Amino acid sequence: MSLLDGICHEKIAAMTHAQRETLCAELRRMITSQCLSGGGHLSGNLGFVECTAALHSVFDSSRDRFVFDVGHQSYAHKLLTGRAGRFSTLRRPGGLSGFCLPAESPHDAFVSGHSSISVSAGLGIAAALSLSHSDRKTVCILGDGALTGGQAYEGLNNAGKREVPNLLVVLNDNEMSIGKNSGGVARYLTKIRSGTDYIRAKKRVKEFLSVTKVGSMAEFAISDVKRFLKHIVYQETLFENLGFLYFGPVDGHDLSALIDIFTAVQDMREPVLVHIITKKGKGYRPAEESAAKYHAVSGNVNDNHVSIFSASPTAASSQTFSQIFGREIEKYGADPRVCLITAAMKHPTGCDAFAAKYPGRFFDAGIAEQHAVTFAAGLASCGKIPVFAVYSTFLQRAYDQLIHDVSISGLHVVLAVDRAGYVEDGVTHHGIYDAAFLKTVPGCVIFSPRTETEFCECMRRALFEEKGLAAVRYPRGVPEPAEPGAEARGDFVYSHGVDKNRLTVTYGRGFGGLISGDVLRLIKIFPFPEEALRIAREYETVEFVEEGITEGGIAQSFYWQMRTK
Amino acid sequence: MSLLDGICHEKIAAMTHAQRETLCAELRRMITSQCLSGGGHLSGNLGFVECTAALHSVFDSSRDRFVFDVGHQSYAHKLLTGRAGRFSTLRRPGGLSGFCLPAESPHDAFVSGHSSISVSAGLGIAAALSLSHSDRKTVCILGDGALTGGQAYEGLNNAGKREVPNLLVVLNDNEMSIGKNSGGVARYLTKIRSGTDYIRAKKRVKEFLSVTKVGSMAEFAISDVKRFLKHIVYQETLFENLGFLYFGPVDGHDLSALIDIFTAVQDMREPVLVHIITKKGKGYRPAEESAAKYHAVSGNVNDNHVSIFSASPTAASSQTFSQIFGREIEKYGADPRVCLITAAMKHPTGCDAFAAKYPGRFFDAGIAEQHAVTFAAGLASCGKIPVFAVYSTFLQRAYDQLIHDVSISGLHVVLAVDRAGYVEDGVTHHGIYDAAFLKTVPGCVIFSPRTETEFCECMRRALFEEKGLAAVRYPRGVPEPAEPGAEARGDFVYSHGVDKNRLTVTYGRGFGGLISGDVLRLIKIFPFPEEALRIAREYETVEFVEEGITEGGIAQSFYWQMRTK
Repeated sequence: MSLLDGICHEKIAAMTHAQRETLCAELRRMITSQCLSGGGHLSGNLGFVECTAALHSVFDSSRDRFVFDVGHQSYAHKLLTGRAGRFSTLRRPGGLSGFCLPAESPHDAFVSGHSSISVSAGLGIAAALSLSHSDRKTVCILGDGALTGGQAYEGLNNAGKREVPNLLVVLNDNEMSIGKNSGGVARYLTKIRSGTDYIRAKKRVKEFLSVTKVGSMAEFAISDVKRFLKHIVYQETLFENLGFLYFGPVDGHDLSALIDIFTAVQDMREPVLVHIITKKGKGYRPAEESAAKYHAVSGNVNDNHVSIFSASPTAASSQTFSQIFGREIEKYGADPRVCLITAAMKHPTGCDAFAAKYPGRFFDAGIAEQHAVTFAAGLASCGKIPVFAVYSTFLQRAYDQLIHDVSISGLHVVLAVDRAGYVEDGVTHHGIYDAAFLKTVPGCVIFSPRTETEFCECMRRALFEEKGLAAVRYPRGVPEPAEPGAEARGDFVYSHGVDKNRLTVTYGRGFGGLISGDVLRLIKIFPFPEEALRIAREYETVEFVEEGITEGGIAQSFYWQMRTK
Repeated sequence: MSLLDGICHEKIAAMTHAQRETLCAELRRMITSQCLSGGGHLSGNLGFVECTAALHSVFDSSRDRFVFDVGHQSYAHKLLTGRAGRFSTLRRPGGLSGFCLPAESPHDAFVSGHSSISVSAGLGIAAALSLSHSDRKTVCILGDGALTGGQAYEGLNNAGKREVPNLLVVLNDNEMSIGKNSGGVARYLTKIRSGTDYIRAKKRVKEFLSVTKVGSMAEFAISDVKRFLKHIVYQETLFENLGFLYFGPVDGHDLSALIDIFTAVQDMREPVLVHIITKKGKGYRPAEESAAKYHAVSGNVNDNHVSIFSASPTAASSQTFSQIFGREIEKYGADPRVCLITAAMKHPTGCDAFAAKYPGRFFDAGIAEQHAVTFAAGLASCGKIPVFAVYSTFLQRAYDQLIHDVSISGLHVVLAVDRAGYVEDGVTHHGIYDAAFLKTVPGCVIFSPRTETEFCECMRRALFEEKGLAAVRYPRGVPEPAEPGAEARGDFVYSHGVDKNRLTVTYGRGFGGLISGDVLRLIKIFPFPEEALRIAREYETVEFVEEGITEGGIAQSFYWQMRTK
């Protein structure tokens, strides 16, 4: 019988220290084994094992509400809440989600996937519980990477009002998001972490402040200094300034220390932030040594992160779109106007080579897509050619900035929209909205290449021919070959002669020849090439195949323009 | 000849102190007079007169780049940059914008309108200038209200990396956004402001730290304390923690002090934040005493903020939609599940009565629409019925949260979307995207009432009949009467019998009888009532009139569904 059979809060709470250590070892073993065989987020989850065990020892997730940010740290939580038996189905169709989903378990209080939302959601939950006179605790688990996203501050700032009781924020500080964090907050956390001298000194000063006899101090203005010290000693961290009670930093692998601190804050009604320091990849040496590489692993099935959809026999390239983007953008870096921006996705979007070669023109915004787009607009307003490489699903967060900061002023900003279309990560991460919402942004031009040649040509046009907002969107995985026998007509590809009455219009991936007959595949998917509309009008029946949402999608626009102009 | 004829940086820089005081008095006189006669943002602009004069005295906005956040503080800047002669056209068709627009003047470096973007845009501009080896300064002007928006932190956090030189952030702290600010950051700024004791003490401690003879201090661990003090004294504000050199707080109405500080920081290459304290409405007593009321005034033309579009003879109500919303939501507050959320727009969206009556269920998120939506989702996940009252244009910022945090989990969240459609504020504020982007959010139901009765019915349905995301969108101004002779059929209104071949489908405002003939007006604009589609299919010609963008709009969907199902 596995240690995890029937595991629950009561059992963990009743364990001895040694038993809990054994439990952690078992959690770590299962996470490592599952990730290496079946794929998954390895490093972050390994780092959060002890803290998860400590949280489940003190809090009861069937009553108390656990809100994970992103969810890259939720595997141990899944294993401790009745999902160990299904753990081998992780990220498989019909299996466990790689993130948190309330539909999957009542122990998941809120959906996770996108970054920096946990405090906002947790505050809403805590407010609702408070209004219902419940004393249950809401626990938000937040990585330091999520702190680079503005919504995390919005949440902390609102929690700091202290209108809502029983909120606990656990800041899991592993000094990384996917890559190394940067920015003021990252440096600030380093300051706290390295502040052992400071913490000792603070303790001494507190002792000093409690001393009433200060005769020999009279030589300088003791009352001023004392007032100053009091002002400082009790309110010095960013989090305290925002209104939180701050505890830490605590060693995130010291089970006893973690249980002690969670027990100590358990009954506090004020918003509490516990800052723990963990090591990404803890306990699995290759991941400890190269945490970014082991952030997510694809398992032995497939080591190149090739999409389930694109791993078809029609693959035409050994390089993924992301890698080809990296090669092309490095080439275009020779033009001193070209700048490259990422939102904490330097490696996954293929920015490494450019960043190494042109560090002065490479900018990592952190998990801050809003900032990234407006920053790009600022660069563009001075004649630079900014390229923002971003996953489709995360670009959703900058919708307002695309309209307000880029489109209104007609600025030339290029979006390299990676992971467009369905992705393995599931419902929170599908890139199925970008074509629809980009189309609503006035003046936006959208390309959706299928082959490597098309991709390179679209990138070139987006950078050097377009004048306003230009997006090149492409799926996870590798390009496909061109359709045999099709006519390439620049903005689209046309295969005809099979059925003069029936046309299928499509764009993007081909799903291994799913579509047959007369086919018009758009490469420039918006605005529509006039010639494509003209051809479509000649057919009696026009069908549209689109890997994206219907409402507001490309098909509806195409149909409208085809029939009304 | 006016003092403002031919005014420029060189002239202001050459002025005596007395001349600059006279200049400020003239700026204040013009702003007050224009706002009271023609409407405009009064209080914020009056508070920023001296600082604007000081900035233009030290910096040259034809070289240096001024980036205003929101732009409610940019009137004096407009008057000092060649736009005094056209100031009477402010916010008139074809006249000066109420915000900043690069198309209007080369002295406006970036578009303003939406909050919290100035540091992101300014950092992009500063990076571009630095890459071009320019030593020009980029000056971001940010209110404390904007600090409640997450993107402001994203910007500050990225600026704090110190990769980009010559960035100056001026924090204009008037303790308000439109209403009173709240939240941790607001309290934190209060702490700094009230810290005169603290500042004096800090000075003394710095003196103490410079003293080498510490013999008599030996009775406690002087080295520890000294280390602690050093750690603190030089890095204590939030902004310093983020990587800025911090100066302040400075009296924002003391011209000499402002010029001194801007001169002092002029040549610093590190990111600098100057924190100034101003009084909203300064110099105009009614506005000083009631700054929120005088935040924006409509001029004597129209004192009720009635939209130019709705001030038609067909107005059927003396109450605006916002006021009616306020009355209805107060009524529904009797249900203890109903919670009301605003993003710093309590009064303009009509939340006052509910907030006064049910303070425990009213939440002001600050200028933080992302947080507001996710917070609402958190409330909904615990069975509350959250209503987020928000302007259409600002809801754009929460697009990702609507998909990720609300829609994916099918949570029941109600959006009261105010200012839908065209608004007086111009291009940055038109509510013309909401129908299109809400339609892409799976499961979202959208209502667009025209009359007061319809509005009340839509609100009731959104709160108590719908199960998922439900939006009621309505324009600025007052409801219109029902069409005479039209059949009310619940989800739509049908006027027929005029022309059996030609139908106009529309929704929302009627623009005073602009549309005639057979008309089908949708009230539930998405998903479409089946009966409405059926009726439309019977006509030979169907036209669609929509106050919103075409691409991705309601018309395209309606047309698609009418023709393809």
